[in-house]
Amino acid sequence: MGPLPFRVGDRASLSRTVTEADLVAFAGISGDFNPLHVNAEYARRSRFGQRVAHGLLSGAYLSAVLGMLLPGPGAILLSIQLHFRRPVRIGDTITATAEVASIREDRSLVRLRTLCTNQDGEVTVEGEAVCLYEPVPTGA
Amino acid sequence: MGPLPFRVGDRASLSRTVTEADLVAFAGISGDFNPLHVNAEYARRSRFGQRVAHGLLSGAYLSAVLGMLLPGPGAILLSIQLHFRRPVRIGDTITATAEVASIREDRSLVRLRTLCTNQDGEVTVEGEAVCLYEPVPTGA
Amino acid sequence: MGPLPFRVGDRASLSRTVTEADLVAFAGISGDFNPLHVNAEYARRSRFGQRVAHGLLSGAYLSAVLGMLLPGPGAILLSIQLHFRRPVRIGDTITATAEVASIREDRSLVRLRTLCTNQDGEVTVEGEAVCLYEPVPTGA
Amino acid sequence: MGPLPFRVGDRASLSRTVTEADLVAFAGISGDFNPLHVNAEYARRSRFGQRVAHGLLSGAYLSAVLGMLLPGPGAILLSIQLHFRRPVRIGDTITATAEVASIREDRSLVRLRTLCTNQDGEVTVEGEAVCLYEPVPTGA
Repeated sequence: MGPLPFRVGDRASLSRTVTEADLVAFAGISGDFNPLHVNAEYARRSRFGQRVAHGLLSGAYLSAVLGMLLPGPGAILLSIQLHFRRPVRIGDTITATAEVASIREDRSLVRLRTLCTNQDGEVTVEGEAVCLYEPVPTGA
Repeated sequence: MGPLPFRVGDRASLSRTVTEADLVAFAGISGDFNPLHVNAEYARRSRFGQRVAHGLLSGAYLSAVLGMLLPGPGAILLSIQLHFRRPVRIGDTITATAEVASIREDRSLVRLRTLCTNQDGEVTVEGEAVCLYEPVPTGA
Repeated sequence: MGPLPFRVGDRASLSRTVTEADLVAFAGISGDFNPLHVNAEYARRSRFGQRVAHGLLSGAYLSAVLGMLLPGPGAILLSIQLHFRRPVRIGDTITATAEVASIREDRSLVRLRTLCTNQDGEVTVEGEAVCLYEPVPTGA
Repeated sequence: MGPLPFRVGDRASLSRTVTEADLVAFAGISGDFNPLHVNAEYARRSRFGQRVAHGLLSGAYLSAVLGMLLPGPGAILLSIQLHFRRPVRIGDTITATAEVASIREDRSLVRLRTLCTNQDGEVTVEGEAVCLYEPVPTGA
């Protein structure tokens, strides 16, 4: 196999508006019905004043960046680390970004800085991920 | 507010069988259509020999343990770290577990060890999470 | 088998309000996360000024008319042609209509004019479909 | 605006295994519960011998190719024409492909040949689509 098809500093992003339907769907798939996410009355009395998205929903968006764009198809996620800096509310438009931080060519490993920002440019999530890059030859 | 209602060593778990429908739904919510997850032909030629679940789907199950059981409603996830040790295949039954590792009473912070295992007792995910515990008084 | 149970000029319709949840779900099923459909910030700067529904969502509504009403159960869609005349926005109520345009009794073929209109009577989609009509005897 | 960023002959593809969950979800979104798609008993007695996917589900996959890859973000679908050549069954892996057939630079119009094939290389859908290509400057 030749060298990995990306370099330190490469970046890729995806943007999505977080809707109430996304919260409902994520609750259903995860089973996480924490009232902060699905109970508007409870959430109104919380520090956020309204329902907020599950942190792992932002993790899911980062999964899309890693699996679809960078490294892209062939990426196998080995670890991920997420620090939730600000709440994500219904209606926020989140840009999930991955940037190649380091590469170990001999083992096909890529470490990426991961970041989510909202429509005001505020960081909502920071972290990093390590992927093995092992695409399957499609002609095989 | 009194002392936090849990102690170092407390544990809680949830178990779920991972279905093909879960993979499809997680792809749809995340936008992660990496062929390892949604393309049976491609996945057959990969190191796994079949489709595997998105790593963050296990993260979503852990989110359910944290948000529903331990710490439970009132938990605000501040960070999570996940190491994917083994693939999760369609039909696997995953037990997601959280165990209180340390507590900072003065700041209502809880650090938990997180773990997923499959039906054979093999560890699929290891990691840790930090939560702020701040339940909203329901009588208020 | 006797003559086909419909005639040229027969019509049937279904109406649905297009919700944000429909856009989210259609993106998830199709994998089409074009920012016009799922990114409110981007869509605001587009010619539409807001998110618009996937064109094929209207196609899906027409599929319901064909499969449920006219021809109805037993319809096998052979071809469809859709011209998108106006955007469909969140909150629009779309009426999808099929009208029998011609029939080939000997081959059980039906050609239908297909149409979607919004709550203001404006045409959003025009086209036509050809179905084979081959219901399975339910008593068999 | 400079010349369009693609040329006659450019192609892009996406592949997905069609699952029972996709049929259920598409039925729910469209409202098309034609028994051929959702009634295994009925479908067994049909010419297909089993449930088959909605034709428009393949249309949805083509929507993803057009909206995500070619032309990609900025594509506005003006028309689509689909001829259903073979049934798509649960478990089939469908590759949806778009290929640029002609371009009208002065009006930013692109005509694409659209094609779906299954894991055996058989054509399931043929057709064409016309898109307006009008990406929104992301820096604006």
